[in-house]
Amino acid sequence: MGYDASGVVEATGPEVTLFRPGDHVFYAGVLDRQGANAEFQLVDERITGIKPAALSFEAAASVPLTGLTAWEMLFDRLQLSVNGDADQTLLMLGGAGGVPCMAIQLARTLSRVNIIGTASRQESVRAVRGFGAHYVLDHSCALAPQVASLAGLPPITRIFSTYTTPSAWENMAEIIAPQGRIGLIDDPEPLDLRLIKFKSVSVHWEAMFTRPMHATADMSKQHDILNKLSCMLDSGKLKPPLLAEYGRLNGLC
Amino acid sequence: MGYDASGVVEATGPEVTLFRPGDHVFYAGVLDRQGANAEFQLVDERITGIKPAALSFEAAASVPLTGLTAWEMLFDRLQLSVNGDADQTLLMLGGAGGVPCMAIQLARTLSRVNIIGTASRQESVRAVRGFGAHYVLDHSCALAPQVASLAGLPPITRIFSTYTTPSAWENMAEIIAPQGRIGLIDDPEPLDLRLIKFKSVSVHWEAMFTRPMHATADMSKQHDILNKLSCMLDSGKLKPPLLAEYGRLNGLC
Repeated sequence: MGYDASGVVEATGPEVTLFRPGDHVFYAGVLDRQGANAEFQLVDERITGIKPAALSFEAAASVPLTGLTAWEMLFDRLQLSVNGDADQTLLMLGGAGGVPCMAIQLARTLSRVNIIGTASRQESVRAVRGFGAHYVLDHSCALAPQVASLAGLPPITRIFSTYTTPSAWENMAEIIAPQGRIGLIDDPEPLDLRLIKFKSVSVHWEAMFTRPMHATADMSKQHDILNKLSCMLDSGKLKPPLLAEYGRLNGLC
Repeated sequence: MGYDASGVVEATGPEVTLFRPGDHVFYAGVLDRQGANAEFQLVDERITGIKPAALSFEAAASVPLTGLTAWEMLFDRLQLSVNGDADQTLLMLGGAGGVPCMAIQLARTLSRVNIIGTASRQESVRAVRGFGAHYVLDHSCALAPQVASLAGLPPITRIFSTYTTPSAWENMAEIIAPQGRIGLIDDPEPLDLRLIKFKSVSVHWEAMFTRPMHATADMSKQHDILNKLSCMLDSGKLKPPLLAEYGRLNGLC
């Protein structure tokens, strides 16, 4: 759907070394090539991974954009330590969507950081707990008093925000630890960065299309990440964010 | 002056291990203790360094705030590599003040990064070249065309801005490399961060009072940085930013 895709390799170019015709693959693609509604697509091997065998093509196609966004934000932008950070806390703001689903699971499985998710509806609270958050707070109320009520909570050194309203920004500025990192993926209005100046905090964008759009030197990291996600999905350490299937696309939709 | 100070240790507390009475020291202090206009000051040893012997007390007192700000921004926030980054470029925006004076010298002496300074007046252009910038551009004109005219320039992966006007922000968003880092130390109006979203760029604050104000676990890094600066000043690898001395303070000023 859109750019996320999974499918079968029909043919490869002369310089391709990672895949052969017949391989089952998945990828998020790139904005300046055909999208995944086309019957055939041309995709760079450096942003393509081996499809998880345990998943249907439909479920596998729900993984690349959400999985890459979550992984790149946590490990490349916010610099969460693999197997570490037990003395720190990650706040996942807006916890019940596809990206938070992957981010909370990845943080819980691959690091030892303490995880706060946020949700306001009962159904979302259950979902966020299910992904693996240690605590769930209500983002429709001020966060600082709720954070203060969690006894023994390590400092919130990292925040991943999917929904950066002006009041969410003020909440984040209040609770982020000195020298902490705030990650964004949405489209906020201009932000008053002066609120975080005297804590020497940093703000990090994660846009999953950055590596393929700009053909960065480290573009093939997306190949590596997709293969790691595939492995985790096949071993049952990770569940895909697919919530419902809508059947086959047709021209009358 | 203000909080920056140099002087002689008169007495130490029972837990002090780094200094003894009679030591010559310098420091930037912290906002919630006495400033340097007081005759006697109480200062934490973790944010105090040994005064460079080669400098007068007056010249030494021009170093801590500018030197700590420059060092923390370059190496802690923008993560410049010591002895590395020859394939990358640092843009120092607003190049002729005390902080840029120290930042350009430190980047030139301790790393291999290519350095662009900016200035608009002839006198400032000479100063920025004197600090060690490889190139000097005019920040009163659009930067992108000037950058494009520098043949063979490695990508601008880091920008250190001391003067973040709306037009400077647009210039920075245009020329920063994908996955690059922008550092701020001034007081800009709210910024449209969406301009740098699809490059996954990050924005980093450096406020020199962060470590002492919040008593962070790594607060004693300021002691280490001041001692390194002192060593570089004594060996002539670094010049202090002091431009003029105004003589002894008195109550009639």
